[in-house]
Amino acid sequence: MEDLKNKINSTSVEILCIGSELLLGNILNSNAKWIAEELASLGLPHYQQTVVGDNINRIKYAILQASKRSRILIITGGLGPTYDDLTHEAIGATFNTPLKENKELSKSLKQKIKGNSNSAISSIRKQSSIPIGAKVITNNTGTAPGIIWTPIVNFTILTFPGVPSELKDMWHQDGMNWFKKKSFNKGIIKSKILHFTGISETSLSERIKHLMHKENPTIAPYASLGEVKLRVTAKAENNHTANKLIDPIEKEIISFTKDNYFGHGNDSLASVVINLLRKRGETLALAESCTGGGIGNAISQISGCSDVFLGGIISYNNFIKERLLGVPKNLLLEYGAVSNEVVQSMSHGAKKRFNADWVIAVSGIAGPTGGSIEKPIGLVHFSVTGPDIEVCSKELFGKHKSRNAIQKLSVLKGLDLLRLLLLKTS
Amino acid sequence: MEDLKNKINSTSVEILCIGSELLLGNILNSNAKWIAEELASLGLPHYQQTVVGDNINRIKYAILQASKRSRILIITGGLGPTYDDLTHEAIGATFNTPLKENKELSKSLKQKIKGNSNSAISSIRKQSSIPIGAKVITNNTGTAPGIIWTPIVNFTILTFPGVPSELKDMWHQDGMNWFKKKSFNKGIIKSKILHFTGISETSLSERIKHLMHKENPTIAPYASLGEVKLRVTAKAENNHTANKLIDPIEKEIISFTKDNYFGHGNDSLASVVINLLRKRGETLALAESCTGGGIGNAISQISGCSDVFLGGIISYNNFIKERLLGVPKNLLLEYGAVSNEVVQSMSHGAKKRFNADWVIAVSGIAGPTGGSIEKPIGLVHFSVTGPDIEVCSKELFGKHKSRNAIQKLSVLKGLDLLRLLLLKTS
Repeated sequence: MEDLKNKINSTSVEILCIGSELLLGNILNSNAKWIAEELASLGLPHYQQTVVGDNINRIKYAILQASKRSRILIITGGLGPTYDDLTHEAIGATFNTPLKENKELSKSLKQKIKGNSNSAISSIRKQSSIPIGAKVITNNTGTAPGIIWTPIVNFTILTFPGVPSELKDMWHQDGMNWFKKKSFNKGIIKSKILHFTGISETSLSERIKHLMHKENPTIAPYASLGEVKLRVTAKAENNHTANKLIDPIEKEIISFTKDNYFGHGNDSLASVVINLLRKRGETLALAESCTGGGIGNAISQISGCSDVFLGGIISYNNFIKERLLGVPKNLLLEYGAVSNEVVQSMSHGAKKRFNADWVIAVSGIAGPTGGSIEKPIGLVHFSVTGPDIEVCSKELFGKHKSRNAIQKLSVLKGLDLLRLLLLKTS
Repeated sequence: MEDLKNKINSTSVEILCIGSELLLGNILNSNAKWIAEELASLGLPHYQQTVVGDNINRIKYAILQASKRSRILIITGGLGPTYDDLTHEAIGATFNTPLKENKELSKSLKQKIKGNSNSAISSIRKQSSIPIGAKVITNNTGTAPGIIWTPIVNFTILTFPGVPSELKDMWHQDGMNWFKKKSFNKGIIKSKILHFTGISETSLSERIKHLMHKENPTIAPYASLGEVKLRVTAKAENNHTANKLIDPIEKEIISFTKDNYFGHGNDSLASVVINLLRKRGETLALAESCTGGGIGNAISQISGCSDVFLGGIISYNNFIKERLLGVPKNLLLEYGAVSNEVVQSMSHGAKKRFNADWVIAVSGIAGPTGGSIEKPIGLVHFSVTGPDIEVCSKELFGKHKSRNAIQKLSVLKGLDLLRLLLLKTS
């Protein structure tokens, strides 16, 4: 195990997550996954993840062990204001360094934590006390600050709160830049994520199997609900040479996967659809039943969607389909709310109401009750109506899928139907 | 750190997950969470989780370290047929014990892995080779067997495949029983999660500070976006005695936190609101602007919401506020779309359109653009209208929060305003 002790020449990184809720299995360790992805994109080798509870001796022990193995330790959790938040205390104690109240920190915390109660005062004191010599990582969205500290030669600790949104903000602001400035990464590992929908992981891998065993760049598929991603990873001296490795492979992959490819990086089906509509100067409205606002929610998460997104009608109840979308009662009686006829009528109704260029309409059975032999749980009908084109489509997502999965798959399918029509008519 | 070394009298357990995909951040470590929950339900203390990649030296090192700290090590992953599956090899090497082909195992693998190809033969040989003295944990659904082995006094290793369904089957068949037979678990650990909103972690801890240092049950707070949770954890002989410890503390916590408490376990603000409305036989409609369907999405995720949820209008564009919700143009011109006057008018419009008992209306500035000095990013106006009551309210969520965070906080705030009004008028 000699290689583990000889850390001086390496830039090995470890992650330590602190929180008894992780040991009790109350939550998934999404922070470790997120940091792992970030480290990979920076080209930094990362060899171990550890989780311990809110116990000072175990935290100290874990830090000490990491200091013997690795060059950098990223810690999340245990930075809050309560007695069981022990991270900075444990770090100080491990390296026999007292904590000291940081004046700037306590000043900024006084503005965030209002009041003069004992608990406010003690929260401020606790959260602004950091090991002497440590540099602050500012937390703009929450109260718990992080630190960057090098207590001994060749070992630096970075701490972040356990709240994922705060961790991410602080990483993007300060953490990532620290790594970049230190230029640990001789050369880079660059990953590009390509997004696909309407195809399984197996079929996608089969279509590009002649590329799957390449060594630089490597190609790794992974599936999530309603989507498959390919990660194309190149090792290279710099960004330019990495791109020269990735670009031709990306082109080849897209030529073999055609319309199943919908974007890369941070693209989502919603952002892609909004960009296509914006380029055409066209607008979008929604008529949602079983998705209950899920498509609107996906669209409105995209900054700048107001250029094209007018709004929608959530017609969860059938009476609302009649009243607000003008679906004739006899269609509902004859075909049922989950039918081609009704989604088409919902789509036409919304187009008129909103005076929109495009409408996505959805009606289905999300379960866990309400299914029948003719119309099982997981049956969802879609209609997309445009300026002079329209399509209807139905999906059987499978009656063993959860309500939530059926709703999410319906949101993606509705957006994808519109995307394909926009591509077809461009 | 004396307590860590003195493991002889304890039944401390650790989890070691092996797989480079975890270090690359390709997947969430759901196995660690699942095993953690199982151990908690058996009342077994579990103090550390470790993740290392498919590297034999790092695996050996992790096993050796665990053997110094803990009584039992549960390992997942690295049991497959390929060259990078190294778990049993590493276990044998750590304790200087050779692997030997287990005849029964290779016989059963021959029935699962058909064919006489070199790769089939080598897969069978690899997967049936286990350290001398180890007992097999049979894998009925896949090929990779696990083992139970006590290489040194007071240290036992159990191995399971990384495929979650195989791990679960094998745990339920053999793993769990091994623990039960050994009777490590004198009693159980039971956790109950209580949910709070509209209060910070600091204020919540302050209100119940007289309870925060209890030893059985213990109380631990943790915060997420728009919510604080308390985990109340009791160690007891059985479920009945655990409840007897938890129940009075739960009651006391609720009496000190009043309306900030909204539910326990799997309750969400949406499910609580739906249950309250269902009991009253009343209906709900929505008028959403900046949340773009987010409230509808939260409501419709709850199975059975159709009893009370009629639907909503997503009036993202101001013209739609006029046209579908009947907001007078002069209100929009005079006060702007993000104002008390406009959300109130949206709320009234939706109440009429849907003929609903209750309406939540929301309009705000989610950013990252569109803010001004008078109306900064993060300003959100709410209106809740009921049968004979209504409230308006505004929040400044903070201009540094992300668009997504402002939208999510708005969804929770809107639901909570309705919840509080329903409680007030019950």
